[in-house]
Amino acid sequence: MSSLIGVVNVVNTILNTPRIGWLQRGVPQAIAESVGDHVLLTSYLALILCNSVHKVDSDINADKCTSMALIHDAHEALIGNVSNSARSLISNWRDIETRLFDELQFPEELRNYFREYRYGLSIEGRIVNLSDKLATLIRACIYAGAGYDTKELIINYKELIEKLLSEFTGNVGQVISNIVKPILSWCDDRAITHTLSNESPQ
Amino acid sequence: MSSLIGVVNVVNTILNTPRIGWLQRGVPQAIAESVGDHVLLTSYLALILCNSVHKVDSDINADKCTSMALIHDAHEALIGNVSNSARSLISNWRDIETRLFDELQFPEELRNYFREYRYGLSIEGRIVNLSDKLATLIRACIYAGAGYDTKELIINYKELIEKLLSEFTGNVGQVISNIVKPILSWCDDRAITHTLSNESPQ
Amino acid sequence: MSSLIGVVNVVNTILNTPRIGWLQRGVPQAIAESVGDHVLLTSYLALILCNSVHKVDSDINADKCTSMALIHDAHEALIGNVSNSARSLISNWRDIETRLFDELQFPEELRNYFREYRYGLSIEGRIVNLSDKLATLIRACIYAGAGYDTKELIINYKELIEKLLSEFTGNVGQVISNIVKPILSWCDDRAITHTLSNESPQ
Amino acid sequence: MSSLIGVVNVVNTILNTPRIGWLQRGVPQAIAESVGDHVLLTSYLALILCNSVHKVDSDINADKCTSMALIHDAHEALIGNVSNSARSLISNWRDIETRLFDELQFPEELRNYFREYRYGLSIEGRIVNLSDKLATLIRACIYAGAGYDTKELIINYKELIEKLLSEFTGNVGQVISNIVKPILSWCDDRAITHTLSNESPQ
Amino acid sequence: MSSLIGVVNVVNTILNTPRIGWLQRGVPQAIAESVGDHVLLTSYLALILCNSVHKVDSDINADKCTSMALIHDAHEALIGNVSNSARSLISNWRDIETRLFDELQFPEELRNYFREYRYGLSIEGRIVNLSDKLATLIRACIYAGAGYDTKELIINYKELIEKLLSEFTGNVGQVISNIVKPILSWCDDRAITHTLSNESPQ
Amino acid sequence: MSSLIGVVNVVNTILNTPRIGWLQRGVPQAIAESVGDHVLLTSYLALILCNSVHKVDSDINADKCTSMALIHDAHEALIGNVSNSARSLISNWRDIETRLFDELQFPEELRNYFREYRYGLSIEGRIVNLSDKLATLIRACIYAGAGYDTKELIINYKELIEKLLSEFTGNVGQVISNIVKPILSWCDDRAITHTLSNESPQ
Repeated sequence: MSSLIGVVNVVNTILNTPRIGWLQRGVPQAIAESVGDHVLLTSYLALILCNSVHKVDSDINADKCTSMALIHDAHEALIGNVSNSARSLISNWRDIETRLFDELQFPEELRNYFREYRYGLSIEGRIVNLSDKLATLIRACIYAGAGYDTKELIINYKELIEKLLSEFTGNVGQVISNIVKPILSWCDDRAITHTLSNESPQ
Repeated sequence: MSSLIGVVNVVNTILNTPRIGWLQRGVPQAIAESVGDHVLLTSYLALILCNSVHKVDSDINADKCTSMALIHDAHEALIGNVSNSARSLISNWRDIETRLFDELQFPEELRNYFREYRYGLSIEGRIVNLSDKLATLIRACIYAGAGYDTKELIINYKELIEKLLSEFTGNVGQVISNIVKPILSWCDDRAITHTLSNESPQ
Repeated sequence: MSSLIGVVNVVNTILNTPRIGWLQRGVPQAIAESVGDHVLLTSYLALILCNSVHKVDSDINADKCTSMALIHDAHEALIGNVSNSARSLISNWRDIETRLFDELQFPEELRNYFREYRYGLSIEGRIVNLSDKLATLIRACIYAGAGYDTKELIINYKELIEKLLSEFTGNVGQVISNIVKPILSWCDDRAITHTLSNESPQ
Repeated sequence: MSSLIGVVNVVNTILNTPRIGWLQRGVPQAIAESVGDHVLLTSYLALILCNSVHKVDSDINADKCTSMALIHDAHEALIGNVSNSARSLISNWRDIETRLFDELQFPEELRNYFREYRYGLSIEGRIVNLSDKLATLIRACIYAGAGYDTKELIINYKELIEKLLSEFTGNVGQVISNIVKPILSWCDDRAITHTLSNESPQ
Repeated sequence: MSSLIGVVNVVNTILNTPRIGWLQRGVPQAIAESVGDHVLLTSYLALILCNSVHKVDSDINADKCTSMALIHDAHEALIGNVSNSARSLISNWRDIETRLFDELQFPEELRNYFREYRYGLSIEGRIVNLSDKLATLIRACIYAGAGYDTKELIINYKELIEKLLSEFTGNVGQVISNIVKPILSWCDDRAITHTLSNESPQ
Repeated sequence: MSSLIGVVNVVNTILNTPRIGWLQRGVPQAIAESVGDHVLLTSYLALILCNSVHKVDSDINADKCTSMALIHDAHEALIGNVSNSARSLISNWRDIETRLFDELQFPEELRNYFREYRYGLSIEGRIVNLSDKLATLIRACIYAGAGYDTKELIINYKELIEKLLSEFTGNVGQVISNIVKPILSWCDDRAITHTLSNESPQ
C-alpha cells in the first residue's frame, strides 16, 4: 500500500461497520459485532489453530495464518458489509471481492494471501477460512444466549464447519478437531438450551 | 407484503445499519446516521417539499411523496448499505436494487412507487430523489461542524443538488428553490467555516 | 413550516430521544428505541394497513396515513418524551400536545392531520392510532425476548389493541384483523414463553 | 422509600435518560449527558462548594448538600426529562415536580431536602441550585468544544450564574466566587474561541 | 481540591469507564455499567440505608454516608478500573489506592472519609462498603436476567454480603437486614430462574 | 492456551475495554478506541512496516510481526486498561504484565513473542513497539480533529516516535522513516491547526 494513511482508513472503517447478518437477526447496532471485531477474533483463532497444527506439520506457517486472517475482510472497507442473499444475486461475487481487494494497493504478498484464503489455495488459507466460519458461529451462540434469534444460522454454520473439518485429514485433521470440538459443545450449552425453552412453552 | 412481521424486520434492520459513506469518512458508528435515520429525514423533507409544491400545482400528491420516501431504501434491509465505489463496479446496480425491492413482497402500488423514484418516472419520484440527496448533504454538513472530513462529499452533493434543482422549472421550480436555498446557506455556515479554519491556520 | 432547518431539528431530536417507557423497564439507553425509531415503524405499519384497507374501501387514503403517522410524535421534539404517569397528572395533556404541535409551524394540512389522529376524527387517524399502539407492543415483545421486563405493558397493550380492533367493523375490520392477528401470535411466541420460563423454573 | 428496589429503578432510569436540552442542540444520544450523569456532577460540585463554605461558616452542612444534590432530579425517573419550553407552558410546574417527588416515597427528611432545594429555602438548597446550573454550563462548554451549538445556552447560563453568585454575600459569597470564577474562564477558553472561528470565516 | 476543573475531569472519567468485571463476563461495553454509574447507585443505597439506621441510632450521620459513597471510587479516574485478579497480584493494593486518592487533592475531610470507608474505620464506612457490594450484586442480577453469565459472581457476592450483614448487630443490624433482604430475593427471581432454565433444558 | 474458549474471552474483553488515556482526555466512551481496536490498528501497521522492511533485510519476518502485534496487549483482558500514572506508581510494572501474560496460557512461542516485544529483544519486537506508539499517535490526532484535548499527548508521542525512529539505522531505518514520515505530517494537519485556532481566538 502506498501509505499508512490508507491503512488507517481501512482499519477505522471495518471497526465501525456492523455485520449485516447480525442486524438482520435483530441484534441492536450498539452490541453488534463489527467487521473489525470479527477480524480480530478470526486472527486469534487462526493463530492458535495454525500454531498447534505447526507442531505436527512443520510446513505450516502459523504467522502467515495471522497475516492472512488479519487482511481477509479488508476490502469490506471499500464496499461495506453485504448480505449473503445479495451476494448470491450477483454473479462472480468472489471475483468482485478480489478486484476490490487489489484496489487497496496492499503489497503483492498480501494480495497473494487474499487469493490463497479466498480460493482455498493453501492449507493456511483453508485454516483461515475455517477460523472465519468458527468466529461467526461463536458470535451467533453468544447472541443466542442473550435472547437473539440466531438459531437457524447456528445450525447452518455447524454443518458447514463439520464439512470443513472433514476436509482436514491425518494428524492435522486430528489436531484441529481436538481444538474445535470443545467450542462446538460450549456453543450448544449457550444456544440450544435457550432455544429449547423458547420452543416448548407449555 | 404477506405479513407485518416482515415489515418489522425491514424497519429494524435499516434502523441499525449505519451508512457506509459516513464510516468511510471517519464518523464513529455510535454517532453515524443509520439508513433508517436517513429515511426518516428524507420522508420529512419530501413531505414538506411536496406539500408546498402542491399549492402551486394541485396535480402533485404530497402524501404519495411521503410513502415513496418512506420505502425508498427498504431493500437495503436485504442487502446492507453498499458504498458508491462498489456500486459502480457492478453493472446494472439499479436493476439489482429493483429486483431486491420486489423480493420484499410489498403491495404492487409500493413496487411502482419504488420504480417512479428509482428511475425518475414522476414529479413525486424526482422530488423524493432531491430529498434523498438533500438529506445526505444536510448530514454531511452536520458532521463537518463536528470535525469530520466530509468536505469533498459536500462539494459533490451541492453540485448534484444544483443540477437537480435546475430540472424543476416554472412555479414548481421556484417554490422548491425558495425552500431549498436557505438550507444550502445553513450548510455553508457549518461546513465551510470549519474547513477554512482547518486549512489556513496562520 | 417556515424552513427546512426546523424540520431537520425536529427529526434529529426525535431520533435521539429514547422512549422513557423502555428506560423505566430497564432497557439500556444504547438499545432503547427512540421516538424517531418508533415513528418509522408506526409509519410503515400504517402504510401497509391503510394500503390493504384501501382495497376494500376506496375512500381510505393510504398515503395520507403515512403522512399522518410520520408527524404523529413530531411535537416530542419540543417537549421530550414524557411518561404516562406524568401525563395523567397534568389535566388537558392532549390539548397541551396540540398546542405544542402548532408551535412547530407545520403547514395547515399537517396540523389538521395531527388533530385527526390525536382525537380520532377520521378512519385514517384511527388506523394511525392503532399502528402507534401496535408498534409499541411489537417493541415490547422484542425486549421481552431479550430478557427485559415488559410483561405488564404487553398485557395492557394487547387489551388496548383488541379494543381498538373491535371498533373497526365490516370488511375494513376484517382486513385489519387478518393483518394484525399474526403479529399478536408472533408476539406471544417471543414474550410469553420467556415469561413462563422465568416464573416457573422448577 | 419502602424498598431498595424502587431506588434501583430510579437510579437506572435517570442514568439512561439523556437530557433533552442537549439532544435539541444536536448532541447525538450516544455522547449526550444523562440525567444521572448530571446528578453525579452536580453532587460533586455541591460537595466541594459546601465543604469550602463550611470552613468560613460552620453552620453549613456539606454532607447535607451532597444528599440534596443526589436526589435533586430523582423525580425525573417518573416523568422523563422535559424541555424548558414545555415546562413554561404548564402552569405550576414546580408543584407538579414536588408532587411527583413525593410519589417516590423517599423518607421525610429527603422530601424536605427536595423542597429546600426546589424553593431555595436554605443556603444548602441555594448552593445545590447553583451547582445544578454550573454543571449544566460546564457540559455546554464541553459540547461547544466538540463542535455542537450550545452558544446561546452558554450565554444564558453565565448570566444566570452571575446572578446566583451575587446573591451570596460576605465571606460565603467570596469563597464561592473564588471557586467558581476559574471554571467560568475555563469555559470561555473552550466555548468562545470555537464560536469565534465559526462566526468569522473570512 | 485546588479547582473544580479537576473535579469535572474526575467525574467525566469515571462516568466513561466501564467496570472490567462486567466486560470479562461478556457484557458489551454499550450496556456495561460504568464506574460512575456504580457510584451513583452506591450513593443512593448508602443514603437510604444510613437514613434508616439513623432512626434507631442517632449517632449515625446519613449525609456523611452519601459524601463517603460519592467519593469512594474517585481515584479510579487516575488509575482506570483494575480487575480483582490483577489487584491480588499487587501487594499492598489498598495502600496504592489510598496514595492515588490523595493525589486527587480533595479536602482533608474527604481524604479521611476515604480512609474510613477503605479500612472500615467507622460505621458509616462499613455501610458504604456494604452498599458498594450490594450495588455490584444488583447489577449482576440484572445482567443475569438479560442472559449474561454472572452466576458465579452472584454466588460470591451473596456470601460476602451475608458476612457483612452479620457484622452489624443489635437494632442497627436488624434495620439493615430488613432493608437488604428483599433485594436479595428480588435478585434470586431474576438470576437463579434464568440460570436454572439454562441448565436444565429437558 | 488450553482452549479456544479462553481466546474468545480474551478477544471479547479487549474489544470492549476503552483505553483509559482517551477517557481521561474527555473522549466519550461511545467513541473511544478500545484496547481491541488499538490491537487491530497496531497489527496492520506492523504488518505493513515489517513487510516493507523485509524487502531490504530478508532476515525480518513480517508475519511474525503480525502475530506479535496481535497478542501485544492480550494480558489487558485480565487486568483492565491501567493508566500510565498508575503504572509508574507500581514498581516492576513490566514484570507484572509479563506474569499476567503467562497466566493466559498461550503457547510457548507466543509467550516468547511477548517478551521480544515488551523488552525490545528483536527487531520485530522493536517494530511492533513503534507500531504501538504510532497507533496511539494516530488516534490522538483523529481525536484532536474532533475537538478533544489530546495536544500534550501528541507532543509527547511525536518525541517518543522520533526517538524510536532514530534507533533504526541503515536501509531499515530509511525504509521505516519513509513510511512513517507522511503519517506524522497527516497528523499535524489534523491536530495542530485545530489547536492553533483554539489558542489564538483574537
